[in-house]
Amino acid sequence: MFEVKATDGGTRARAGVLETPHGTADTPLFMPVATQATVKAMRPEQVAELGFEIVLSNAYHLWLRPGLAVVEGLGGLHAFMGWDGPILTDSGGYQVLSLGKDVKITPEGARFRSHLDGSTVFLSPELSMEVQQDLGADIAMALDECLPYPADRARVESSLELNRDWAARCRSAHSSDTQALFGIVQGGMFPDLRRRSAEATAELDFPGYGLGGFSVGEPRELTLDLLEQTLAHVPEGAPRYLMGVGDPLGMAEAVALGVDMFDSVLPTRIARNGSAMLGTGRINLRNSRFASDEGPLDPGCSCYTCRSFTRAYLRHLVAAREILGFHLLTVHNLHQVSDLVYRMRRAISSGSFSRLLSELRSLDEHE
Amino acid sequence: MFEVKATDGGTRARAGVLETPHGTADTPLFMPVATQATVKAMRPEQVAELGFEIVLSNAYHLWLRPGLAVVEGLGGLHAFMGWDGPILTDSGGYQVLSLGKDVKITPEGARFRSHLDGSTVFLSPELSMEVQQDLGADIAMALDECLPYPADRARVESSLELNRDWAARCRSAHSSDTQALFGIVQGGMFPDLRRRSAEATAELDFPGYGLGGFSVGEPRELTLDLLEQTLAHVPEGAPRYLMGVGDPLGMAEAVALGVDMFDSVLPTRIARNGSAMLGTGRINLRNSRFASDEGPLDPGCSCYTCRSFTRAYLRHLVAAREILGFHLLTVHNLHQVSDLVYRMRRAISSGSFSRLLSELRSLDEHE
Repeated sequence: MFEVKATDGGTRARAGVLETPHGTADTPLFMPVATQATVKAMRPEQVAELGFEIVLSNAYHLWLRPGLAVVEGLGGLHAFMGWDGPILTDSGGYQVLSLGKDVKITPEGARFRSHLDGSTVFLSPELSMEVQQDLGADIAMALDECLPYPADRARVESSLELNRDWAARCRSAHSSDTQALFGIVQGGMFPDLRRRSAEATAELDFPGYGLGGFSVGEPRELTLDLLEQTLAHVPEGAPRYLMGVGDPLGMAEAVALGVDMFDSVLPTRIARNGSAMLGTGRINLRNSRFASDEGPLDPGCSCYTCRSFTRAYLRHLVAAREILGFHLLTVHNLHQVSDLVYRMRRAISSGSFSRLLSELRSLDEHE
Repeated sequence: MFEVKATDGGTRARAGVLETPHGTADTPLFMPVATQATVKAMRPEQVAELGFEIVLSNAYHLWLRPGLAVVEGLGGLHAFMGWDGPILTDSGGYQVLSLGKDVKITPEGARFRSHLDGSTVFLSPELSMEVQQDLGADIAMALDECLPYPADRARVESSLELNRDWAARCRSAHSSDTQALFGIVQGGMFPDLRRRSAEATAELDFPGYGLGGFSVGEPRELTLDLLEQTLAHVPEGAPRYLMGVGDPLGMAEAVALGVDMFDSVLPTRIARNGSAMLGTGRINLRNSRFASDEGPLDPGCSCYTCRSFTRAYLRHLVAAREILGFHLLTVHNLHQVSDLVYRMRRAISSGSFSRLLSELRSLDEHE
């Protein structure tokens, strides 16, 4: 399902193609997040027009609302949300811990109260596989326990045992011929535990690997250091997906280490907070210095928002909390991310990735 | 600036063309409301694609935020909001009374505290003219006092005196060669006072007339009865604009009496409340009976929303309070209104308006 097409000489970056039942996606890639079966503030075809080939949706959220019966009855998640391309679903492990109330994790699974109505629900590795298969995702993720940061060594070690068991049960329960199931490597901030988790997950021979438990508050240097040490033990021929990372420099550094896939709510979430991505940094339109600014959000950007509106108008929309403001900033931020992964793919193929990475690092230093 | 092109044989309905510095607009017409320089949840070109040729914006709101200096500095309201077509601005009279705090009306003008920051502001007929000219509206509205419903006869009579004076001052202060200034007929729910106001306003020889103080809570029969009596005293050659009416049957009945223009927040506001316009009525997607409904919002509708999504998906978006849901319902509701005014224009030209009106009345009875 994954083929590496080009590798960079100076780094471990590679460009490839991911094949799924709903078409292919070029890597390195970024998946916009459609938590509730919609990339917030965007029509589905607007997401595709920005160059995205695959989106991420969330099994936990859709399972609780509108429920599996509704999505299945409407012909599955693709038909439900009007997205014909590939979809990856998150398992729900992360959401159980971040959104569920009174969460109790046992070897059997996770028991918790729904954040929507307080009802008690139980999620097991087997049930998570069933949910993701019923949704019709092209790529499902194994159910795992994602620890908060920081977590001490004893806590991480016992979690590794649980995750090893859950991963094996996901592998056994997963019965779809067409859907791919990715394993997830955890291990907290301990290099040897990351390695142990990578080896244990790789033993189960998944067609792809998520790198979980990053971007949880740790410094970037630590992420990259651990990532490098972990990837040495993750099969080279499979796609590697760094979960929850979506800042420009963070993605570029990870690509240099051999990461192929990313997702993050960052571009869409900060848009609704009035922030626009600019180079490797960002500006917030609520700042009064933009009140009379006649320029576009980003003079170098060719997105619909930058072609059509001034910073002053965007600031007005953000200040008035107008939906159009959230939409326009989302369009811009997603365009920035799409443009970056496109430039990375091209640079890897043409042997100029190291130069692109240097440019981004230098841009970041001048922020 | 206004030419009647066709009249209906069975009613007083007429179809015409309104000319403005930013192009023409066919009547009868509906103006989507862009209170804060954006039709809520819509890109400007999406509004145009739905067939609307003119939008309404609000002098009161833009005056307070972002302020005249900002809009003027950016080249005026058209450039600011990215709308090349005609714009009519409401004077602010209605907003002063509905949004302002501690409002004090004197012959000089209205003093009140801003709903945004509590600061004391003063709006006079002269200032309202200046604001609307500086915004660059194609059509400005005279500043008037719009009374709440019900209002007793003495209150309405004294208000008429004030409005007569303010209208004359607006006429004198209005100096633009290109911008048209419409007078506004008030008079509460008293036929003789409506007539007196119509005659006094007509004496000032405006190029167009607003019919204000309707749709403030009174029954439809009363609106239509008063409207008919009022219109007998409003110049025939000028466009007549019924302010704040946007429900399908209400518009059709008013067109039958000789009204040419409408505006209302109804289609966009109820969309954000989960309601879709259907025939002459509406449905609310929050109702659980739509949870598994595979059909489109309206099987007879050709809008983007109805072509692309199921009721079940739209209900899910509304339940999850997703921005896309508000956008999609806004698109549908505006399409419904645009389609209705288009059908009315065509019916008037082809002599079938009475039949269309009967159909709408009968549809409404079966709601």
